[in-house]
Amino acid sequence: MTLPASTLKLLRSLSRRRERASSGLLLAEGTRCVQEALEAGAVIQTAFYTEEVRQNSAEFVRRLESVAGQAAQISAKELQRVSDVVTSQGVLALVQWTPVGPEKVLAAAPSDALLVACDGLSDPGNMGSLLRTCAWFGVQGVLCGEGCVDVTNPKVVRGSMGAIFRLWVAQELQLPAVLSDAGAAGYQLLGTDASAEQHCDGANFDRGTIIVLGNEAHGLSAPVRAAVHKLIRIPRYGKAESLNVAVACGIVLAAARRRQRGGE
Amino acid sequence: MTLPASTLKLLRSLSRRRERASSGLLLAEGTRCVQEALEAGAVIQTAFYTEEVRQNSAEFVRRLESVAGQAAQISAKELQRVSDVVTSQGVLALVQWTPVGPEKVLAAAPSDALLVACDGLSDPGNMGSLLRTCAWFGVQGVLCGEGCVDVTNPKVVRGSMGAIFRLWVAQELQLPAVLSDAGAAGYQLLGTDASAEQHCDGANFDRGTIIVLGNEAHGLSAPVRAAVHKLIRIPRYGKAESLNVAVACGIVLAAARRRQRGGE
Repeated sequence: MTLPASTLKLLRSLSRRRERASSGLLLAEGTRCVQEALEAGAVIQTAFYTEEVRQNSAEFVRRLESVAGQAAQISAKELQRVSDVVTSQGVLALVQWTPVGPEKVLAAAPSDALLVACDGLSDPGNMGSLLRTCAWFGVQGVLCGEGCVDVTNPKVVRGSMGAIFRLWVAQELQLPAVLSDAGAAGYQLLGTDASAEQHCDGANFDRGTIIVLGNEAHGLSAPVRAAVHKLIRIPRYGKAESLNVAVACGIVLAAARRRQRGGE
Repeated sequence: MTLPASTLKLLRSLSRRRERASSGLLLAEGTRCVQEALEAGAVIQTAFYTEEVRQNSAEFVRRLESVAGQAAQISAKELQRVSDVVTSQGVLALVQWTPVGPEKVLAAAPSDALLVACDGLSDPGNMGSLLRTCAWFGVQGVLCGEGCVDVTNPKVVRGSMGAIFRLWVAQELQLPAVLSDAGAAGYQLLGTDASAEQHCDGANFDRGTIIVLGNEAHGLSAPVRAAVHKLIRIPRYGKAESLNVAVACGIVLAAARRRQRGGE
């Protein structure tokens, strides 16, 4: 089929944040990303795939057709017209997903919850990779302060490999105030900082914890630094100046889960 | 000054891999990346910076001028003409750096060495982030098999934040053969695989070890899988399908260093 003008218009409008917010839809591209949306039980409004994908991934396309509101095969050329990437991977879906309020994220029981907060995290690839890491480690939700990249950005969704569909994310938050409330509700607030005394492997994770990560270039802002209970660091063995923020997130979450299961 | 035509030609030629290989030069862009080249003691052949950088980072520019073969202030517009990025960060340097042979990488004493090998790692951002992670954890060198992205690619250099200047990297290797030789020389070869039995925290790192990471979509190739001694995995606590390869690298290296220092 050829895409109707109205669909084309909708798809293209989703490159704008305002349209994503008002429609409650995200653009998921690529087999792995759409597959994750399926696995996570997200509502797939519309899906388009090429003949090649139908031939190579018949079972995937059958599932997509059975759950999506609308699913249709279109030409690779037609798909490329609406793709956000240089070389489309042959499948694209409109998936219902919206950010939530911070209270939804914090509703995870404080006694065993592990949450992540981002303070001015600006690169879409980093945010995507961070969300993917959070989903791997069973983080219940992510709190994003003002100044963070919009998590509904197609580059974030793609970088997350669809992991965004498994997470509660609140964004555009006044992070210092939200963290203070969370601290009052029983959460431990741990900020990451390369010059901290406390080693992440030695930190205590026996109550609900929020790991707070800073901006790629400037780290944690002063108000957020003042709001956290303790700063922790990842020990350095070489001479590199810093770690990528998603890599740092993974190392701290691995340490947290190891401590929580009571072993090394 | 205005860039002479010959310099312009040289800078532009470095977008091609062949020219980078024959000149032995890499393009380093941005304050942090050039700073790392300086810190690592790399030979800076030529450096260009804008007036803004000179005003905001006077000490950095003084150091650059004292060590670079040539250093000159040029206009932001002029710099943008030769920049590989959409918005130049105001400083660009030509730095001497070339890959080495695998014997140089393997020359690290097998008894305490920690090396990383990449099997078909194709994304430049991932490779850059992986090199940065390796430098943080004091990995002595990285072995890249055929099919990996060229590490001299400007996107890799940028993603590494200049960490590439602190590492020995060998590339375009017949990885199975190189790994077999390394195994015969006393190295332990650990491949990463999400379905492995052995948990990375429980692995033994009391002799020289090479951590082998696979392609983003397909993991380790069959010949590399056959060459490693053991497969290890990162425990999963949530439902995400996989981790970013640089994140996985960081988690395994953190586990290795923790075990080597004999603690949890």
